[in-house]
Amino acid sequence: MAFFKITLAYDGAEFSGWQAQPGQRTVQGEVERAWREIIGETVRLNVAGRTDAGVHAAGQVASVESETQIPPATLVGALNSKLPADALVRDVELAPDGFHATHDAKFKRYRYTIYNDHRRPVFMRGYAWHVPTPLDVSAMQRAGQALVGAHDFVSFQSAGSERESTVRTIFAVEVAASRAGRGAQVPDVAASPVKARDSRQDGGAICESDALITIDVEGDGFLYNMVRAIAGTLVEVGRGKRSPESIAETIAAADRSAAGQTAPAHGLSLLWVAY
Amino acid sequence: MAFFKITLAYDGAEFSGWQAQPGQRTVQGEVERAWREIIGETVRLNVAGRTDAGVHAAGQVASVESETQIPPATLVGALNSKLPADALVRDVELAPDGFHATHDAKFKRYRYTIYNDHRRPVFMRGYAWHVPTPLDVSAMQRAGQALVGAHDFVSFQSAGSERESTVRTIFAVEVAASRAGRGAQVPDVAASPVKARDSRQDGGAICESDALITIDVEGDGFLYNMVRAIAGTLVEVGRGKRSPESIAETIAAADRSAAGQTAPAHGLSLLWVAY
Repeated sequence: MAFFKITLAYDGAEFSGWQAQPGQRTVQGEVERAWREIIGETVRLNVAGRTDAGVHAAGQVASVESETQIPPATLVGALNSKLPADALVRDVELAPDGFHATHDAKFKRYRYTIYNDHRRPVFMRGYAWHVPTPLDVSAMQRAGQALVGAHDFVSFQSAGSERESTVRTIFAVEVAASRAGRGAQVPDVAASPVKARDSRQDGGAICESDALITIDVEGDGFLYNMVRAIAGTLVEVGRGKRSPESIAETIAAADRSAAGQTAPAHGLSLLWVAY
Repeated sequence: MAFFKITLAYDGAEFSGWQAQPGQRTVQGEVERAWREIIGETVRLNVAGRTDAGVHAAGQVASVESETQIPPATLVGALNSKLPADALVRDVELAPDGFHATHDAKFKRYRYTIYNDHRRPVFMRGYAWHVPTPLDVSAMQRAGQALVGAHDFVSFQSAGSERESTVRTIFAVEVAASRAGRGAQVPDVAASPVKARDSRQDGGAICESDALITIDVEGDGFLYNMVRAIAGTLVEVGRGKRSPESIAETIAAADRSAAGQTAPAHGLSLLWVAY
């Protein structure tokens, strides 16, 4: 028997989340089906972060124990030939004996993406939460700093999960805006010789990536819906409905109703997992 | 009567192109329906670039003559409230009397996007042509330069269009790679304190935007499928199947079979139009 580490990317829109469920289209279900078709084994994958319906992943990690002799590099292409267009095996590696994607994960980084423009996004509509009112990114950054450290994050945990401890350590909360300012929005066409009045000059971003605010959260573990509750709370800070200084009280309250709303699933992506 | 200039963005995937056709879901059809529902007028839009099925637009421009007294800024929100999620009115402006989006367009810029990685894209799958073999961007840049100027571009025109002259002037062909090199791929997480082995380190781009090659083509007009034929030809240059120096002969041949294949529609976007 050998242990394999599988790194995956998927677009969560059309999946009922990671976890296999009868009659549902799930990422785990698709990968286990592909494994069965290629290798002839029925396996159960373990996973680093059990993402909910609608949540994306750029670097999810799963593990599996198998008797296959197929080289890992060959497995990548073989599995991908059986997977749908919205799920991809990025890599397969041999892992140390006993490797378990859930238990051995040391850190994870999630990214929550916000589209902050008065108009709705077209190209980013599946990957970003549309917040039309302008957000104060600097206030969001200060609020994010208050979350860093070892805290009881029960105020940021949705009901429906049972964990022994609700203390987690957050190493970094990085809030970044892609927009340099209204005047400097179209660097990709700045070199153009065109001086005439054109359809770039309408006061908005031609490039939707110029209107993004990202919230990266890196930690040793996450409670149920924790990053989405952090994103919802930071957006309330960005709108001036909460102060950055109030975050310490929100944590101390140890009460879900003290924090902000749970931001929608489609803005969230699991970026990577460290072992 | 007043003349309006309408700037639009749309995701072409679910549209049978721009042009209204009975029984088809088209961008023109959707915008004319929205106009009718908001203003009560049945209008015919003129458009700068009549995009084909699957082709996207970030800054398409349409024009319309109307008796409405609704202020342009109000029209933006009103029209968007009637449009589907994959089409957006970015702006409405009053235009000079007689303004015609087709005839008055001076220059246009299109972007063709290629996803150049041995693995297929997940998040970019609707917006980029997947070319798995590594492309020589420098050769593509030199080939692009050979297209700049006033030429008879009939070698790059698909059948099915009748135009009096096939001479067009191309002002710029800009080929750009987002990838700085395999070693420098994950700038967005470079600040991470994590030193352990993690799911970023699999020899590939965690960020699909790191694997893009864009071909921007700016000109005073374009023949049918011209940018897609240019993209298909430059990819053959990038694969070493044609030399950059051969492009001059390809133009001189004045024969569609002299140029490369027509690249797929979903990689193309109309960036902007200048008046």
